[in-house]
Amino acid sequence: MIHVSIIGATGYTGVELVRLLGLREDVVLDHLTSRTYAGQKIQHLFPHLLGNVDHTCEELDLEQVTTDSDVIFVALPHGHALPIAKKAKEKGKKVIDLGADFRLKDAAVYEEWYKVPHTEPKLLEEAVYGLPEWDRDAIKDATVIANPGCFVTSILLGLMPLMKKKDWIVPNSIICDSKSGTSGAGRAGNVANLFTEVESSFKAYGVAHHRHTPEIEQLLTQMAGTDTMIQFTPHLVPMSRGILSTIYATVTGGHTADEIHALFEEAYADEPFVQVLPAGMWPMTKSVKGTNNCQLGVTYDERTGRVIIVSVIDNLMKGAAGQAVQNMNLMFGLAETTGLQMIGLFP
Amino acid sequence: MIHVSIIGATGYTGVELVRLLGLREDVVLDHLTSRTYAGQKIQHLFPHLLGNVDHTCEELDLEQVTTDSDVIFVALPHGHALPIAKKAKEKGKKVIDLGADFRLKDAAVYEEWYKVPHTEPKLLEEAVYGLPEWDRDAIKDATVIANPGCFVTSILLGLMPLMKKKDWIVPNSIICDSKSGTSGAGRAGNVANLFTEVESSFKAYGVAHHRHTPEIEQLLTQMAGTDTMIQFTPHLVPMSRGILSTIYATVTGGHTADEIHALFEEAYADEPFVQVLPAGMWPMTKSVKGTNNCQLGVTYDERTGRVIIVSVIDNLMKGAAGQAVQNMNLMFGLAETTGLQMIGLFP
Amino acid sequence: MIHVSIIGATGYTGVELVRLLGLREDVVLDHLTSRTYAGQKIQHLFPHLLGNVDHTCEELDLEQVTTDSDVIFVALPHGHALPIAKKAKEKGKKVIDLGADFRLKDAAVYEEWYKVPHTEPKLLEEAVYGLPEWDRDAIKDATVIANPGCFVTSILLGLMPLMKKKDWIVPNSIICDSKSGTSGAGRAGNVANLFTEVESSFKAYGVAHHRHTPEIEQLLTQMAGTDTMIQFTPHLVPMSRGILSTIYATVTGGHTADEIHALFEEAYADEPFVQVLPAGMWPMTKSVKGTNNCQLGVTYDERTGRVIIVSVIDNLMKGAAGQAVQNMNLMFGLAETTGLQMIGLFP
Amino acid sequence: MIHVSIIGATGYTGVELVRLLGLREDVVLDHLTSRTYAGQKIQHLFPHLLGNVDHTCEELDLEQVTTDSDVIFVALPHGHALPIAKKAKEKGKKVIDLGADFRLKDAAVYEEWYKVPHTEPKLLEEAVYGLPEWDRDAIKDATVIANPGCFVTSILLGLMPLMKKKDWIVPNSIICDSKSGTSGAGRAGNVANLFTEVESSFKAYGVAHHRHTPEIEQLLTQMAGTDTMIQFTPHLVPMSRGILSTIYATVTGGHTADEIHALFEEAYADEPFVQVLPAGMWPMTKSVKGTNNCQLGVTYDERTGRVIIVSVIDNLMKGAAGQAVQNMNLMFGLAETTGLQMIGLFP
Repeated sequence: MIHVSIIGATGYTGVELVRLLGLREDVVLDHLTSRTYAGQKIQHLFPHLLGNVDHTCEELDLEQVTTDSDVIFVALPHGHALPIAKKAKEKGKKVIDLGADFRLKDAAVYEEWYKVPHTEPKLLEEAVYGLPEWDRDAIKDATVIANPGCFVTSILLGLMPLMKKKDWIVPNSIICDSKSGTSGAGRAGNVANLFTEVESSFKAYGVAHHRHTPEIEQLLTQMAGTDTMIQFTPHLVPMSRGILSTIYATVTGGHTADEIHALFEEAYADEPFVQVLPAGMWPMTKSVKGTNNCQLGVTYDERTGRVIIVSVIDNLMKGAAGQAVQNMNLMFGLAETTGLQMIGLFP
Repeated sequence: MIHVSIIGATGYTGVELVRLLGLREDVVLDHLTSRTYAGQKIQHLFPHLLGNVDHTCEELDLEQVTTDSDVIFVALPHGHALPIAKKAKEKGKKVIDLGADFRLKDAAVYEEWYKVPHTEPKLLEEAVYGLPEWDRDAIKDATVIANPGCFVTSILLGLMPLMKKKDWIVPNSIICDSKSGTSGAGRAGNVANLFTEVESSFKAYGVAHHRHTPEIEQLLTQMAGTDTMIQFTPHLVPMSRGILSTIYATVTGGHTADEIHALFEEAYADEPFVQVLPAGMWPMTKSVKGTNNCQLGVTYDERTGRVIIVSVIDNLMKGAAGQAVQNMNLMFGLAETTGLQMIGLFP
Repeated sequence: MIHVSIIGATGYTGVELVRLLGLREDVVLDHLTSRTYAGQKIQHLFPHLLGNVDHTCEELDLEQVTTDSDVIFVALPHGHALPIAKKAKEKGKKVIDLGADFRLKDAAVYEEWYKVPHTEPKLLEEAVYGLPEWDRDAIKDATVIANPGCFVTSILLGLMPLMKKKDWIVPNSIICDSKSGTSGAGRAGNVANLFTEVESSFKAYGVAHHRHTPEIEQLLTQMAGTDTMIQFTPHLVPMSRGILSTIYATVTGGHTADEIHALFEEAYADEPFVQVLPAGMWPMTKSVKGTNNCQLGVTYDERTGRVIIVSVIDNLMKGAAGQAVQNMNLMFGLAETTGLQMIGLFP
Repeated sequence: MIHVSIIGATGYTGVELVRLLGLREDVVLDHLTSRTYAGQKIQHLFPHLLGNVDHTCEELDLEQVTTDSDVIFVALPHGHALPIAKKAKEKGKKVIDLGADFRLKDAAVYEEWYKVPHTEPKLLEEAVYGLPEWDRDAIKDATVIANPGCFVTSILLGLMPLMKKKDWIVPNSIICDSKSGTSGAGRAGNVANLFTEVESSFKAYGVAHHRHTPEIEQLLTQMAGTDTMIQFTPHLVPMSRGILSTIYATVTGGHTADEIHALFEEAYADEPFVQVLPAGMWPMTKSVKGTNNCQLGVTYDERTGRVIIVSVIDNLMKGAAGQAVQNMNLMFGLAETTGLQMIGLFP
């Protein structure tokens, strides 16, 4: 049995972890913490849990949590995972941080984009970036996992096969036009995210300045082995779940559409959670709703010389809680798909 | 020119008044007040106003507002209209209250349901209930208008022809099952009204205890000339605008389906804002979106002996700002439809 | 291993059966039939199945299907299940009909509401109504199951505890005001169900004339042991999945709110798929999305003397495919919850 | 009085023309034609017109229509406007084609993308492209107007100030990532556009092959005076109305962010229907809902050297019917804003 605690269980990613872990027979949910709702039954706060999960939300008692748990999921805003990871490390426990605290390898870059000091540089060094399709071996041995950002995951899986080819695309020609559902904005009550404001509307935000930019560039640079700069624009879609990224890059030439499509098919042939669509088909977010899947459509536009990749994930699943559980499975020697084999909720 | 101020201009009903009045050539918008956004340009807060309304939101200066304005629209939560109406009355100005402060004729009932003392019993006595289809003559001469509640309007227009017949329906058999879009909940940032919570879901709320209940009963009682008690249940629909009320009542007998349908057609034949649909057609909220219209479908179920009325309005229009402007038109001797002749925004 | 075929696999209920059965280790999917899409891979038609279900849709070959399968799910419009059930019966196989062909015990009533002759009166007599909470013992021994209608299920579970009490509510006082998501309308391309028409709107339909009316009355009459007539009005909600029924009935008197709430809690204490909410809480459809659950809120309004019950289900699950699988589990001696233990997809 | 007929009045653009023209006091609606609904009252087909427009839909009688009308709006699929424009021209009447028949100046390009022969090359030569902000003088004298495509309008208005500068952006660096509401797909009943399929989902379509591509390139080439090739990708947003285009282009250098923003502000300072947002603000589609407005956000990303423009319109208004009426106003010597001064329907 794996003993698990979730820090920040009443945010959308936290409660999605509860959904994924609450019925597993190889997992014990120890502590579900919530500052706002401590003392209340989580099934009354979230009636979709009624009859399935009967925990009472607690204040975080770091000593207790790190004593009782084998692995601690941190589903809190950036900054909060640092002391938790430190204490867990001392006690020999594992941490999966769904926030940004261990994603950027350069603490200075972290501090520039997140405006807080990074107090655990040594842990940062040790931390493993939790994208299994990129480096699952490192994850198996990790103590601290930096679970990737939601936009980031959709983009990295969309570009990885090409980046690994090193010279198939023109450096710095990459444009990532991403669209997200609203659950990515979290569960805080603010006017801009009211149903009345968002419904039947579409907008861009964080143009040229979104915090996921350095994370995407760090990983693409690692994959390609050369400095890579991208353009990233997020948008808000009137839907709860789902991210679709449309990715453009100029191809260096000499590669046919068939060759490029085959590259993707081969790259992901053995991946349980990535599906490459037949040429001419394009994915929609609804197809991966509630699952840990990433679906990819790819084409090469001979007219313009660009490859266009469309990548969809469920932001709360492969973009957050699902990927975190995939990482947990790897860290504990389980089949990677344990508890994650599900068919999307369509329609 | 009519000089107008809007108190609470940055709530949904307030900004809807701005939409209706901002381009009128016979109206001058004097003051738009907002506690939260004082000092900010309203067209930057609400970019749909860009290029059309260039006011800066102000703190409420009651002395100034009542000096400058001929009529003051109060679009604030209950309790706030009382001192405003008092001062306006002193200065000989008119007030249209879109809140609940002057709706319930019995101050004790007001205090029971709204949990605040009513400080202006004399004004309450004078105030006229602003449902033009019920008593437009009284509105013409009014100083203080109690603009009806949104659910209430949909229900009163749905029942008025029957109530006036006195004995066509069984007393206390009325059930009003109402469904509202989310703009009725206002523009405060709370978790329950986030897009992510509301989208693709449907729920009931305030079952057996909603504050519109005594207001509906007061007016039905007036119309029927006999004490009337109803069952009222509101629900939340994942849409921004619109109310649909499904109303059930047991018919005393002796009336045919044709007779009942004809009753409605005659009752509203000359009303500019009420349309009775042909028998067999049922209204949808989208048909009245953005307009001051109420559309009604009516049938008599011979099997069960009940009349069923389906009534739709736009809650921000005939349920709030549109009806308020209709009342203003009447109070200032204008054609009742001035500035309100519009076709619904479909689709 | 249970060998299963799904007739009409490319409608919403059919493909939901595929979702529920496609990953089960105790089930073999034999034939997925579709008139429209025969010859096409179902995972290309429904990309949420990609990588999970690799069947090709087939024309229905009744001889083959009834030879190969232990149980046949029929997810077709009414009329089509009759010859299929006949053939299956001859071969000693089981049939679960998700349509209306075996729901109404009186063939004349069936013919009146569905406008087609009932060709299998003997099978109709044998067929068992597949609402496990009402009579699971009969289901265990059944050959032909009439899977209940979606609206019907939400209403029957909402009323069953009261009906069984025989004299707690006034006969014929029941009003069922139901609201459904759009997947209930099926997957035919018609203008009225286009996104553009339905979005951000709400409407009633089939007022006083919906085909689920006699089915509801038949079962309530059985439960109460006395003729019961209801008023039923369906509405369309801009959401894909979910039904919420608001049910009103006049209480005969002498019963307190606590007593009524306790009646429901006791009635469903051991039911795996029905949850009664604490007094004062009201359910929303999103809480049961993707699950076989029914959640109920109940109150007694002392002012009006009415009980108000709010019942939510996922129309494709407890209202169709989920309940069908629950019935299959019972018919094959499996744990009733096999393959159906899941937490709702919130948000 | 201008006598107007609408050919194809029961599609979404056709009925939007009815909304815009139905209440105008300087316009007479002569004929509303519809193949599918001939003989039916348009207000029963579209109840938002109830009480406002009492026309019966007719079969197209080309002789009659061109005799009675001063201007004929053609709101039909491509190919259908050709014979209508021919006949109108013979009778000395004006035509505004909301389809694609007169948009592409090269008949061969038209035939390649639209797969039908162009039978009226002479009219094609005469036809004027109806984007008033580009060349309103030509529109004033036109007989046949090619009303621009919806995506096209959003992109052209977003790029025009830069294109006119000739050498500010790198040729062929332009990427247009566009997102549209569902009304752009028309009012035909097909499965892919059902509410159940589209709701809470997002997808790309027509990647690298959309028919608006050559139209965009033709106009950009005219504006820049040099051959221009673009990348265009449309997406479908779960909302009825609205288009947002995110446009990327590499700046040749030497231009600051302030300079670029000022360029846009100056270019559109006197345009009644285009608003440039203050730097740092980004538009949302809801702000222009129901209006003829285009709102633009602009920034220059110094890090990447790209300009990013976000452009929003209502696809049925500035993207179709609104722009068509704007063109009509110009052709008949009216104030360009006649009947089009309206504030967006927010929320």
